[in-house]
Amino acid sequence: MTVRAILETALYARDLAAAEAFYNRLLDREPYARAEGRHVFYKLDNQMLLIFNPEATRKPSTGKLSVPAHGAIGEGHVCFAASASDLDAWRDRLAELAIAIEADIEWPGEGRSIYIRDPAGNSVEFAEPRIWGFAP
Amino acid sequence: MTVRAILETALYARDLAAAEAFYNRLLDREPYARAEGRHVFYKLDNQMLLIFNPEATRKPSTGKLSVPAHGAIGEGHVCFAASASDLDAWRDRLAELAIAIEADIEWPGEGRSIYIRDPAGNSVEFAEPRIWGFAP
Repeated sequence: MTVRAILETALYARDLAAAEAFYNRLLDREPYARAEGRHVFYKLDNQMLLIFNPEATRKPSTGKLSVPAHGAIGEGHVCFAASASDLDAWRDRLAELAIAIEADIEWPGEGRSIYIRDPAGNSVEFAEPRIWGFAP
Repeated sequence: MTVRAILETALYARDLAAAEAFYNRLLDREPYARAEGRHVFYKLDNQMLLIFNPEATRKPSTGKLSVPAHGAIGEGHVCFAASASDLDAWRDRLAELAIAIEADIEWPGEGRSIYIRDPAGNSVEFAEPRIWGFAP
């Protein structure tokens, strides 16, 4: 029994409409699922990015399935994998989208990250997998 | 330019020692990196699980590299991928570890999830990738 992969990553946003507008543009896709006032979910190649309104998900589940409550307040973090050439292309793409780059870091080991903010203040990073020793 | 994969997933825990004790046992490995009072990081096959003390990471970065601040309070969420047979084995393993199962859900579509809590209250799920339409 070993944990090999993360299937779902969660961020929180009280203004889901703003989050959806932002991630639709950033990810260039529509949500995979949406529940008004509760969540928007995006599907990537093998993982889900789940964006929840913590005011909704902190309440005990009222459906037939008792889904455990959760919900954080404050600025979370996620990082998307990007190749070195992707990062240059992302700089251009983010400029087109009028999304400010908060930081662009060359790590002392190897690899590079760029950071932006989503409307809820979450820190969204794009980074080369080699910053953690993974194959590019 | 498209986002294909998540490289880093973040959770928050003010008591990092308790988080580390828990995840060392759950993930059956030592942290890949650790900074006293700030973070413990775990390496999976192609992704990192980052556990931060929000009281440390919400402060502006003081190092040479200006790493953007973030830090959430409250119960976050992560889900690890597990096959159907893994889930049965996880039930046994969690019993051995004396970790209570909060919920065990058969989804109406297909697939199954089990949920536990980490010491910080984060909701930790194990789920079959097919709950999202991914290959098992």
